[in-house]
Amino acid sequence: MRRVGEVRPSPGITVEELVEQYGKSGSFGAGRLARAARLLTEMLEDEECTRFLGLAGAMVPAGMRGPVLELLDEGLLDVVVSTGANLSHDLIEELGVGHYCGDETADDRDLRSRGISRIYDVYLPEEGFRAFEVGVRELLDEVDDGFTVSQMLREIGKRVSGDCLLGAAARRGVDVYCPAIQDSILGLQVWSHGLEVDAFSDMDEIMDTGFGAERTGALLVGGGVPKNYVLQTMMTAGEGLDYAVQLTTDTPVNGGLSGATLKEAVSWGKVRGRGVTVYGDATITLPILVSAARRGS
Amino acid sequence: MRRVGEVRPSPGITVEELVEQYGKSGSFGAGRLARAARLLTEMLEDEECTRFLGLAGAMVPAGMRGPVLELLDEGLLDVVVSTGANLSHDLIEELGVGHYCGDETADDRDLRSRGISRIYDVYLPEEGFRAFEVGVRELLDEVDDGFTVSQMLREIGKRVSGDCLLGAAARRGVDVYCPAIQDSILGLQVWSHGLEVDAFSDMDEIMDTGFGAERTGALLVGGGVPKNYVLQTMMTAGEGLDYAVQLTTDTPVNGGLSGATLKEAVSWGKVRGRGVTVYGDATITLPILVSAARRGS
Amino acid sequence: MRRVGEVRPSPGITVEELVEQYGKSGSFGAGRLARAARLLTEMLEDEECTRFLGLAGAMVPAGMRGPVLELLDEGLLDVVVSTGANLSHDLIEELGVGHYCGDETADDRDLRSRGISRIYDVYLPEEGFRAFEVGVRELLDEVDDGFTVSQMLREIGKRVSGDCLLGAAARRGVDVYCPAIQDSILGLQVWSHGLEVDAFSDMDEIMDTGFGAERTGALLVGGGVPKNYVLQTMMTAGEGLDYAVQLTTDTPVNGGLSGATLKEAVSWGKVRGRGVTVYGDATITLPILVSAARRGS
Amino acid sequence: MRRVGEVRPSPGITVEELVEQYGKSGSFGAGRLARAARLLTEMLEDEECTRFLGLAGAMVPAGMRGPVLELLDEGLLDVVVSTGANLSHDLIEELGVGHYCGDETADDRDLRSRGISRIYDVYLPEEGFRAFEVGVRELLDEVDDGFTVSQMLREIGKRVSGDCLLGAAARRGVDVYCPAIQDSILGLQVWSHGLEVDAFSDMDEIMDTGFGAERTGALLVGGGVPKNYVLQTMMTAGEGLDYAVQLTTDTPVNGGLSGATLKEAVSWGKVRGRGVTVYGDATITLPILVSAARRGS
Repeated sequence: MRRVGEVRPSPGITVEELVEQYGKSGSFGAGRLARAARLLTEMLEDEECTRFLGLAGAMVPAGMRGPVLELLDEGLLDVVVSTGANLSHDLIEELGVGHYCGDETADDRDLRSRGISRIYDVYLPEEGFRAFEVGVRELLDEVDDGFTVSQMLREIGKRVSGDCLLGAAARRGVDVYCPAIQDSILGLQVWSHGLEVDAFSDMDEIMDTGFGAERTGALLVGGGVPKNYVLQTMMTAGEGLDYAVQLTTDTPVNGGLSGATLKEAVSWGKVRGRGVTVYGDATITLPILVSAARRGS
Repeated sequence: MRRVGEVRPSPGITVEELVEQYGKSGSFGAGRLARAARLLTEMLEDEECTRFLGLAGAMVPAGMRGPVLELLDEGLLDVVVSTGANLSHDLIEELGVGHYCGDETADDRDLRSRGISRIYDVYLPEEGFRAFEVGVRELLDEVDDGFTVSQMLREIGKRVSGDCLLGAAARRGVDVYCPAIQDSILGLQVWSHGLEVDAFSDMDEIMDTGFGAERTGALLVGGGVPKNYVLQTMMTAGEGLDYAVQLTTDTPVNGGLSGATLKEAVSWGKVRGRGVTVYGDATITLPILVSAARRGS
Repeated sequence: MRRVGEVRPSPGITVEELVEQYGKSGSFGAGRLARAARLLTEMLEDEECTRFLGLAGAMVPAGMRGPVLELLDEGLLDVVVSTGANLSHDLIEELGVGHYCGDETADDRDLRSRGISRIYDVYLPEEGFRAFEVGVRELLDEVDDGFTVSQMLREIGKRVSGDCLLGAAARRGVDVYCPAIQDSILGLQVWSHGLEVDAFSDMDEIMDTGFGAERTGALLVGGGVPKNYVLQTMMTAGEGLDYAVQLTTDTPVNGGLSGATLKEAVSWGKVRGRGVTVYGDATITLPILVSAARRGS
Repeated sequence: MRRVGEVRPSPGITVEELVEQYGKSGSFGAGRLARAARLLTEMLEDEECTRFLGLAGAMVPAGMRGPVLELLDEGLLDVVVSTGANLSHDLIEELGVGHYCGDETADDRDLRSRGISRIYDVYLPEEGFRAFEVGVRELLDEVDDGFTVSQMLREIGKRVSGDCLLGAAARRGVDVYCPAIQDSILGLQVWSHGLEVDAFSDMDEIMDTGFGAERTGALLVGGGVPKNYVLQTMMTAGEGLDYAVQLTTDTPVNGGLSGATLKEAVSWGKVRGRGVTVYGDATITLPILVSAARRGS
């Protein structure tokens, strides 16, 4: 048995050194985070591995595009599955006036009268929605009927900057899927634009990616549709993920998929390799993981 | 100020009496549950109110169709927005061999080799999937291309029994929406069947329902897509919900929509009336609420 | 394998019937609550069983003395281990003006200036503290130096009514322990009174109770000191609990004792029999359990 | 309004830079952690501030003495209030064979038969207890009757090395309080040793510390007795804390003190200045805070 090591967080240490110390502890959340960094490192160094990112939670409004852009810019992701909300807020940042630091205890009727929508302690002024709506409408004008959702997102991505997720993904040839796009303000824009988009046909493409992969790995930020969609794809189009890291604030005991363990996913054939779950707010843990995971070259 | 009352849970009391006692306490979770029951009662007694149910979490696998069927059978719901998973498991119960009581600490590689998929402490044998696949294929044979998702679900509902959610909803003329149907084993079946289904067009219908409503109310079981979809519809097609009750195990502090307060929803125009959030496992709280909420006649 | 049964929460059902339906589900939180009720029933019917209650969390301020009084009045408890806070608020109810329904979003600087202390959505006016202080001082005047903590609590209990926990326990000959009494406003009163009380000597008595028991069982409401103290007593003075039911809102993954599983307690020798954990707010689950658990006669 | 900034966690950044980036985000958990680091920096730089540490949760078994030793060794703490468990495990590390990395899914009956006690994924072999018992007995032989708990802990601290919490505190003249010492294996040793220790008299000393302070601040790791004891001291012996940082995995909604907000503490007079709560596993957040908080000199 290995003795639990002491964590000594002196001033000036790097994030990588911090995570090494967590690894010396090996216990509770610190141990999980260190094991997740090691598994993510393996996954990012494995050149035969097709890598998926599941992106749920309000990560983009909280300024958390950065860790994803780090991975995209270094060519470390192959597929992104996102909520509609994260893509909507990505375009709100790109096309408009962005998100602002607010107060979670504010009077929401007062915010309403001032045209501010609140996401916990983030404020979104209505000018941002306006600019988003105008900008998206112009982008959709250039998209034809008959595309799949992911094709439509690629068309949008080609026309926006590389500072946003859709733009960076398009530049890198990374597919972006959004199975519940209807359920977002981006979806509302596509609907009001009257574009005809098939609900199921981009499953061909993601299934092909799964079938063709030597090995597969996923970094799952939050649960919801992105987590399940990555897992059901791997269950259907392969033998299950070889690497899986999930960051969640949920717990298994209520039975929902968002909090389900990666061990449970083994029974379904969604995961066949190793998995590590890190419990905690991904606005804290994702930047640590991305900074600490060493990358192949 | 009202003094906190004593809860005296003698043997033999009814659920309604229990909730009255929670109301006497008025504090913490007990107080929330009592306030939710009162608000739900108001909502169910308000004949001018169009009533939405958002259904997330693995409620159907846990035997929790019953509370929803109670509400459907009494004509108390107008619209259901569900995850794909709940509808898939609804059809697994209807067409096949159902769900079984299992063990959350089981060896998942062993379960995998025995063809059992696990949802926390619920087991799903592969015979159930088989029967589901065969049955769904037959049902989809009778569905034409060009339907919206909700129209397709209604066609399925007409051909199954009233003991399942889709069947009971179809009999009662209740619309069922599933914005992320792609993200479920039912969606996988529709995809492999090659049916052409438009991703956005059933938003016309739910928006019309919202626009036409005198007052609106929602019972939100869990978060995810169903919660957001009900709320975004009310934001777009009305002035926000007049009544809102949400049952959640999530917390606001991580910023995600699933855990967001109903107060936050006021800033977006998603809620304009009263809202009560009950924190806790909906397999415990939903049956209590449905039993305790008195109904109009 | 047993099929997951359907929960049908019709109006008018009793709490006992509700819990039977949870048992038919057998899944997630509903299943846990039903199993806990069955185990508690066994424990309460076992006449050879010495029964402990661990009482943490702000149960008394929320009006939750009632479920404990139900058990005390029926002679179903032998030992109570409580936080100092619950005993302090028990005496605040007994001696003073009680607790009031408040608002968790109130301005706390304003409450401060109005002399109101807040416990989530419960208000405690300073008149209550005053009356408590005066009353406790009078009670302590009659207590001699040299008592153990539990003896001192028994002396207090003899002098207050049977409507409060200390009074009901004294009438029934139930020992009340409060290992962290120093950490409460009751403890502050004892300290300012200058009473000499030994910190360790009432461990003799609780250990004797443990050693002498044929079988032992515990209902653990919340974690903290009461949970650990019951468990360490059973580890030291016996072979571990035969029955254990814990109600908690905590989770094991952070490694703390409050959220630790009863399975973990087996490795320590704190539990040797069966245990059921119910996750959720005890203001909801404790009254259900107490009403539903059938009692021996 | 300040725009939410982008977090860019490049490889090689320091923990301090990471926390600065969290501050640019300013949102959700990342924002809280950055604000906590800033407040802790202010508190550590304020030379007129008397600084308290509350230490609950199983921090020592997880290798988390290090962050506390960092603060003690730099002379940044004046008072430590700990659970009995953390002090017991501190002495188990000091006197014995330490803690080992284990497996939270292990068979606990098997562990029991092998003499291993489990704390989530940490193992404690019985040799450790033995060595602890022998060592503590020798230490207690040198302690006289009539000491207060904190005096007894100081006597122990003088006789152990500076690598353990009690030793480092004694060397630095830092008072260590343990109001619930009875509730721990260290307490069991003191009890079986038959030492006479007064339950209340060390409250004189901590109250004097509070009364004498120009300003006060607290870093509260977890809830339980340490949190409440620090807060009740400040309520009684002063005007409330000027600085408060709490790290918790609990939530306010269940009404317990462990999850209570620092805002609620304002209504009691426990806090009068600023407070920041960081939600999440302290094995992750405490090392970050200690590394990132710049220190006065």
